[in-house]
Amino acid sequence: MKALVYHGPGRRSWEDVPDPAVKSPDDAVVRVDCVTICGTDLHILKGDVATAEPGRVLGHEAVGTVEEVGSNVRTVAPGDRVLVSCISACGRCRYCREARYGQCLGGGGWILGHRIDGTQAERVRVPFADTSAYKLPADVSDEDAVLLADILPTSYEVGVLAAGVRPGDTVVVVGAGPVGLAAILTARLFSPAHVIAVDPAPGRRQAAAAVGADVLLDPDDDVLARVRDLTDGLGADVAVEAVGIPATFESCVELVRPGGHVANVGVHGSPATLHLETAWIRDLTITTGLVDTATTPVLLRMLAAGQLGVTGLVTHRFGLDEMQDAYDVFSRPADTGVLKVALFRGA
Amino acid sequence: MKALVYHGPGRRSWEDVPDPAVKSPDDAVVRVDCVTICGTDLHILKGDVATAEPGRVLGHEAVGTVEEVGSNVRTVAPGDRVLVSCISACGRCRYCREARYGQCLGGGGWILGHRIDGTQAERVRVPFADTSAYKLPADVSDEDAVLLADILPTSYEVGVLAAGVRPGDTVVVVGAGPVGLAAILTARLFSPAHVIAVDPAPGRRQAAAAVGADVLLDPDDDVLARVRDLTDGLGADVAVEAVGIPATFESCVELVRPGGHVANVGVHGSPATLHLETAWIRDLTITTGLVDTATTPVLLRMLAAGQLGVTGLVTHRFGLDEMQDAYDVFSRPADTGVLKVALFRGA
Amino acid sequence: MKALVYHGPGRRSWEDVPDPAVKSPDDAVVRVDCVTICGTDLHILKGDVATAEPGRVLGHEAVGTVEEVGSNVRTVAPGDRVLVSCISACGRCRYCREARYGQCLGGGGWILGHRIDGTQAERVRVPFADTSAYKLPADVSDEDAVLLADILPTSYEVGVLAAGVRPGDTVVVVGAGPVGLAAILTARLFSPAHVIAVDPAPGRRQAAAAVGADVLLDPDDDVLARVRDLTDGLGADVAVEAVGIPATFESCVELVRPGGHVANVGVHGSPATLHLETAWIRDLTITTGLVDTATTPVLLRMLAAGQLGVTGLVTHRFGLDEMQDAYDVFSRPADTGVLKVALFRGA
Amino acid sequence: MKALVYHGPGRRSWEDVPDPAVKSPDDAVVRVDCVTICGTDLHILKGDVATAEPGRVLGHEAVGTVEEVGSNVRTVAPGDRVLVSCISACGRCRYCREARYGQCLGGGGWILGHRIDGTQAERVRVPFADTSAYKLPADVSDEDAVLLADILPTSYEVGVLAAGVRPGDTVVVVGAGPVGLAAILTARLFSPAHVIAVDPAPGRRQAAAAVGADVLLDPDDDVLARVRDLTDGLGADVAVEAVGIPATFESCVELVRPGGHVANVGVHGSPATLHLETAWIRDLTITTGLVDTATTPVLLRMLAAGQLGVTGLVTHRFGLDEMQDAYDVFSRPADTGVLKVALFRGA
Repeated sequence: MKALVYHGPGRRSWEDVPDPAVKSPDDAVVRVDCVTICGTDLHILKGDVATAEPGRVLGHEAVGTVEEVGSNVRTVAPGDRVLVSCISACGRCRYCREARYGQCLGGGGWILGHRIDGTQAERVRVPFADTSAYKLPADVSDEDAVLLADILPTSYEVGVLAAGVRPGDTVVVVGAGPVGLAAILTARLFSPAHVIAVDPAPGRRQAAAAVGADVLLDPDDDVLARVRDLTDGLGADVAVEAVGIPATFESCVELVRPGGHVANVGVHGSPATLHLETAWIRDLTITTGLVDTATTPVLLRMLAAGQLGVTGLVTHRFGLDEMQDAYDVFSRPADTGVLKVALFRGA
Repeated sequence: MKALVYHGPGRRSWEDVPDPAVKSPDDAVVRVDCVTICGTDLHILKGDVATAEPGRVLGHEAVGTVEEVGSNVRTVAPGDRVLVSCISACGRCRYCREARYGQCLGGGGWILGHRIDGTQAERVRVPFADTSAYKLPADVSDEDAVLLADILPTSYEVGVLAAGVRPGDTVVVVGAGPVGLAAILTARLFSPAHVIAVDPAPGRRQAAAAVGADVLLDPDDDVLARVRDLTDGLGADVAVEAVGIPATFESCVELVRPGGHVANVGVHGSPATLHLETAWIRDLTITTGLVDTATTPVLLRMLAAGQLGVTGLVTHRFGLDEMQDAYDVFSRPADTGVLKVALFRGA
Repeated sequence: MKALVYHGPGRRSWEDVPDPAVKSPDDAVVRVDCVTICGTDLHILKGDVATAEPGRVLGHEAVGTVEEVGSNVRTVAPGDRVLVSCISACGRCRYCREARYGQCLGGGGWILGHRIDGTQAERVRVPFADTSAYKLPADVSDEDAVLLADILPTSYEVGVLAAGVRPGDTVVVVGAGPVGLAAILTARLFSPAHVIAVDPAPGRRQAAAAVGADVLLDPDDDVLARVRDLTDGLGADVAVEAVGIPATFESCVELVRPGGHVANVGVHGSPATLHLETAWIRDLTITTGLVDTATTPVLLRMLAAGQLGVTGLVTHRFGLDEMQDAYDVFSRPADTGVLKVALFRGA
Repeated sequence: MKALVYHGPGRRSWEDVPDPAVKSPDDAVVRVDCVTICGTDLHILKGDVATAEPGRVLGHEAVGTVEEVGSNVRTVAPGDRVLVSCISACGRCRYCREARYGQCLGGGGWILGHRIDGTQAERVRVPFADTSAYKLPADVSDEDAVLLADILPTSYEVGVLAAGVRPGDTVVVVGAGPVGLAAILTARLFSPAHVIAVDPAPGRRQAAAAVGADVLLDPDDDVLARVRDLTDGLGADVAVEAVGIPATFESCVELVRPGGHVANVGVHGSPATLHLETAWIRDLTITTGLVDTATTPVLLRMLAAGQLGVTGLVTHRFGLDEMQDAYDVFSRPADTGVLKVALFRGA
């Protein structure tokens, strides 16, 4: 079959690789019908992720059709249309028993397209299929569903739920890329009074408005003043960091009110400065985290019910064999205006 | 009356000042029977707290007897023996209505011995007496009770409760000064499996053992290795920072397991480095805060019931007019082995 | 002034009574601009509430203008437009310190129009004004605001928040009178997948649809079957009882899934049967409660922001001096189709 | 092998049955080293549990040694000493993913000695072994460990954790049989101010004192008055029902304060009366539930660390082949003073 293979920093190819097969009673093999590309894939390609070794098939998000299952798989069967989640869960370890699948100690966690071959291929082996693949409702499109493989649960769990967004809150989302946009639209599930999106790109601010942000700011604006204006001078109840650089994290800490919550969703490569000399007295809560995908079933239910307005997040569509083009577009958002790409198996 | 007056960096005197009087219908005037000194008082004396102006009577912890109350005070009356809390609560503002009294917007918060004259005096005016002074049970000694004016609720609320200590947890408390010791003894209320105390001073480690730490470490030990040994290699469930310097905060972040909680209790003067490049994926929760004293009533109840083993925290006792001596002893812990001092009104 | 006075079971009159005055430093006297009638007022008139004695001015919901305040009132001033809440909070007792104002031990709780004279009058004395009256934003109408004096916080706190409604939940609200309708519209704040309204009156089912119910059932329908159809056979996540009779409570217990929550909002006069022989194993949570009005400030903020669609709850409007007519209409909902009435001070 | 077989109401025998074998890749076969008898076994023998059919080997609590495992079992291996839990968890269904294993929809839940053959035998097949059997620490005795198969997690989860016991609380436990005693000793983990045990049997009250109750009452005492004396007239913070009859449940509802919590742990056969006419206004939370055994790992850790004082709960010991004698003793507690029995495999 064909797959997108990482060959070391800066090098990828769409090439022939062996077909995957069931190796364990827990495995499923899934034919990929729709796949997307994640910012993390670009990080791997830059060489930032040492644990992803050359030769690896990339990708950790897909919708597909089950072709074969191991002897112990009970919840999905050949022919089922499934979501392949970015997180694999052994279902047995201490963390999986607490629904903290992202921290799985039993061989799961984020492994697809990282420690084992991933979804940017014609087929993928999905370990622990019972707890890592999700049967799809009939009335959900592939394109919408694939967004629930990673960015929706990530933003919802690590951002919105971790921060405890409540009705009437003022929420700032710093960064309106795909993950920030997903944070905005899932924050809206809790009826905040305001969702303020901060991003330097006008197109992304516009996309933020489309998914529910009611205040749009450029980082060059006086963001702190604007936030305080809306909050009796106190600051935001919640700030979601959705960029992954020190400056935006530090800004989030500054933007929240005493008693506020900073939920870091961004993937960071450098340390940030935590101004404890002012923060110690401000009753702050700061959370970090990898997605668990524990909310995937409920998000799927809501998607099927038309309650998640994900339309507009996919900006560019390709055939699966146009993988290299899709990478080209996805890696140049400033030029292409891309948010998420979707690639589809040919008819 | 006599009081300990701050006269600018490095300068304090025990001198005559005017007697306080009831100024508002909410006020009480309390005769001070027992008072203590806090690390924060030393910070003020160093000039670190700009909002404390010269001429201020210091002190925010006391046990005393109500002498006079304003026309609207309903819960305490002249003759009552009361705890004067470090936090004053207006009882009306948004934060007070959420029991977050430390962040009071209505003129309270930490004001005693800071923005208004405090408790290191023969008498003190206590604003918002109904929500800031606590009638004492008969069977609680002044010396024990005064510890509930600040360090016990601080460690319990900002450390133990914020961190959500649970039965079976492994808790690391970094710093075994008075606040760290109070964190150890209140953590024990939740039956953790281990409480690990980390402090360079052998005397403080010994004190930590006396209040319930079962593992005693010097920061020069391989603390991370020891913690991992006790936790299947994962790290502590909870780390309580009770020092207030960047190194100890950073150590706490390193010591907790994925999904763990760092509760910062220490008062910081400098920023710390937050290693988001490793922390972003570890499902951490970091909290900071000023005490609210919302737990003071329940702590008093437990103290009366013999459930808080505070004995041993007060190491040195003085008469009220020996205030300057008490400061001398308290400011040189390495020499004197002091934990907390208590000063008593003469017979 | 004129007021609606209870003169024992079945007897009320709109008559002259003495004007109220400030009696305590905490009091405010408020001129009533808009008032409504509650089902509880009808209960008093039936003689069901022994603690409401003849001679009492009824009413515990109003919007008005502050005319006079006691010496210790700090947050409202003469001329301020305020919401007079059904719950008075002393702000000092154990329950008030936990924001459980409905259970106030210091002389508050539900006292207006019950233990002291109430709001169905030209003027009302509001005790503990700082913690029991709420300054109104300019852009909120009297008619909308008066709904926040009781039914909105009641349904939100005792129903929706107590039940912990979550995005994707299926919520059944049994009873679509004013309180049930308020439960439906506040449940929507949490983006449930379905809100099922159960009521025998077609007009109330229609009103339920208008505030956000997507499934409308008559109690004579096979409600259990319909709920299970929508929930993979499991039952509702949440059932809100908003009637106050044994049959509807018992139905709620039957309608929820294992792990589900029954939130009783209805005022009951008789015991119900709890089928523990089946319920013991079903992981149920059942809650009861009196409103605290702790959420009044955030509800006001949301109302001002246009986030609470209360339009339609007031079906009949009167002048204040048409109080008796308003009672007549309100006490015959089957005939009049009334939901809530609003009475306004004449120009 | 020998096993205790249920042959319809009132009929049991210790007889030869076929040895169990691994049937699914998830199964383990465990040699039983220590087993106990539960009140539920007596219910089955009375014919109260229709889903337990004649021919069934009883028992759902054991400590044993793994003899054989299916091809997909990863966490236990032949030779491992394990706890066999009363709850089997498929690990895949909606409830298992929420750690609510007692409500497992995938063929687990309480099945051992109920829907499939159980542990009162020389060997037992344990389905879903990875999520239903727990490797034992070396320093835990069989006799202590077997108490963690059911009564300790039941009391802890359905009683103490569901009720949210907090330091300083007053907790009433109604019923001091094995489950009530386990509730007392696990409530102590949260440092309540008082644990009040109510039981008519003097021996059980004495046992209650031994595990940590500080107030011992006979139901014929004025329990309500005594509870109120200890709680400023308010009532208990928490009441745990550990009997399973209407009278004790109704008593629990009466004994808690406004805002209090009734945690029903008892197995009920009849409906109870819920006095909503007084309860509706009291801010009560009432919970029911089947154990999930989600806390088994942490309880095992605490047992190994000496933090669970279970000594004394086992009052009578037998050889495994004395099963019938053990049943005789266990079914006559008034005569024998039995709490729990333990049966051990012969050398």
